[in-house]
Amino acid sequence: MSNVKSTRIVLAARPSGRPAEDDFRTQTEELPALKDGQVLLKILYLSLDPYMRERMKDAKSYAPPLQIGDVIVGGTVGEVVESRHGEFSPGDTVLSYSGWKTHAVEDGESLRKLDPSKTPVTTALGVLGMPGFTAYSGLLTIGQPKPGETVVVAAASGPVGSAVGQIARLKGARVVGIAGGAKKCALLKNEFDFDEAIDHRGEDFPERLKAACPQGIDVYFENVGGPVWDAVFPLLNTYARVPVCGLVAHYNQTGAAEGSDRLPGMMREILHKSLTIRGFIQTEFVETQMCAFSEEMSEWVANGQVKYREDIIDGLENAPAAFAGLLEGKNVGKLIVKL
Amino acid sequence: MSNVKSTRIVLAARPSGRPAEDDFRTQTEELPALKDGQVLLKILYLSLDPYMRERMKDAKSYAPPLQIGDVIVGGTVGEVVESRHGEFSPGDTVLSYSGWKTHAVEDGESLRKLDPSKTPVTTALGVLGMPGFTAYSGLLTIGQPKPGETVVVAAASGPVGSAVGQIARLKGARVVGIAGGAKKCALLKNEFDFDEAIDHRGEDFPERLKAACPQGIDVYFENVGGPVWDAVFPLLNTYARVPVCGLVAHYNQTGAAEGSDRLPGMMREILHKSLTIRGFIQTEFVETQMCAFSEEMSEWVANGQVKYREDIIDGLENAPAAFAGLLEGKNVGKLIVKL
Repeated sequence: MSNVKSTRIVLAARPSGRPAEDDFRTQTEELPALKDGQVLLKILYLSLDPYMRERMKDAKSYAPPLQIGDVIVGGTVGEVVESRHGEFSPGDTVLSYSGWKTHAVEDGESLRKLDPSKTPVTTALGVLGMPGFTAYSGLLTIGQPKPGETVVVAAASGPVGSAVGQIARLKGARVVGIAGGAKKCALLKNEFDFDEAIDHRGEDFPERLKAACPQGIDVYFENVGGPVWDAVFPLLNTYARVPVCGLVAHYNQTGAAEGSDRLPGMMREILHKSLTIRGFIQTEFVETQMCAFSEEMSEWVANGQVKYREDIIDGLENAPAAFAGLLEGKNVGKLIVKL
Repeated sequence: MSNVKSTRIVLAARPSGRPAEDDFRTQTEELPALKDGQVLLKILYLSLDPYMRERMKDAKSYAPPLQIGDVIVGGTVGEVVESRHGEFSPGDTVLSYSGWKTHAVEDGESLRKLDPSKTPVTTALGVLGMPGFTAYSGLLTIGQPKPGETVVVAAASGPVGSAVGQIARLKGARVVGIAGGAKKCALLKNEFDFDEAIDHRGEDFPERLKAACPQGIDVYFENVGGPVWDAVFPLLNTYARVPVCGLVAHYNQTGAAEGSDRLPGMMREILHKSLTIRGFIQTEFVETQMCAFSEEMSEWVANGQVKYREDIIDGLENAPAAFAGLLEGKNVGKLIVKL
């Protein structure tokens, strides 16, 4: 097979603030013929995740920044169309990191085969994939929740937050979720079994959070930053642990933050309360935690002990607008584009 | 024995900024007769340490604040004058936590007997006491320096900093000390065997620190905060560890810090570099680390592998002025008052 065309979305300009349509450009390329060891994929599902916003900036972050003209990165589920790798045959479903495109040529070594008869393949982009592993590894290695402790998680209805909350409950902690809006808060209590759910858009949010944490906060899983952090910080207990996983409230921010300098006050509290503030990217824990995660999380999901919610939209052309909405908390559950 | 009088220094007023003579008041009290299990001490040496400044504030810190009229706290070495406790006899030298006073009645259970024939008893207040243990436990449990890594320590000529640097070198790290003034920097290189010593009072301090850390910084042992932190922070490597032990640059600070808000930027770096920022007080590690410390550090000091410097001044009445100088970096080495 040859002359396969791939439609792809590239970075046209670095977004200033909220990503706009003009920051993206759609292109079509003809894919090269396969070399030995390579596989041709038709992409079925594309994962949209907040970290992609950081990759669009002209600054070193988790990884080198995207350059203008680069395909936007992202986890994908694809179907094998043609294979020159012994482990893969046409019709196989695989996890790849192909980015925002309809077709891709990938080295077989970079792919992981999925079993559609076992669990929906989209879970490989969510609860059983990178977001779920982020929740599992960050919570258990850095947060280390103990029975009876209070765990608070922000962006709690998202794929990372909902997994954090449910795993923390399985470990015996009391779990308080923070989310934006009544609908998400209801989901936290009714679907994900959080002990408490607090809407950070409410004017009395700091007081309500305090009331929901009468014993203070022992673990705060940070996904957002901004005003949510401001409300959480004074409630942290001595020896509290803060895995810093994301800061989505800051991703669209431009320029220096206004207001008096709160850094010295934060350092003082870190000292006086013996706090642990620890940034992480899940890749750090792949070697030590991935096996345990795959085993334990698959079982929890199969048992219904960990539930998940997906928000699947149609069409690669809708990815830019959906992504902008993701950064503003517009969707509910794991955001996936179906191609 | 009875009618023993103790002269003591109490908190007369909460200092605003630099502690002033008026913030302290000298009193004399008649000590009560001993009860069973108690011991009468004549205090020989009083330890002055930066943390005492925090205890003088009307805010919860490590411990409840001192109240107006309370004796200033502090570690002390005393001689037993009278004993109603089986383990102690007149003439024994002991470590106590009697504070700024000439004589004290203490429960025997709270005392530790010292052996003056083995090491100078003042080391129980410094390199073999709380400051040495602070260095040892914070560096090894939080900092975890590995051979070849770069360890930076602030207030490096002080009792904590000099021990941190020397222990880090024993663990195979490259050690850069930050201190105020040429005299202290010379001490770091000539006496304590630091690889590099940088004067934070030099105008080109950030550039010189950067030049001294060509591989970046893997462990920063924080004792001071302020402009030293500002110079260190951009140099931290991915996975760097920051034990936060003290913030003496802020202790005399009043009111909110001026300037734009650097907290969001700090959180971003914590995330992007997977940093660990961890406050601690040595008491946390007494149960798990004290035995190893006592054994290892005593040996290092006896061998000359860890050196120490003391600055001993005369007379309890000079404690307030010496303490104010300590917060401004005026002394060199462990500050002790000889009574």
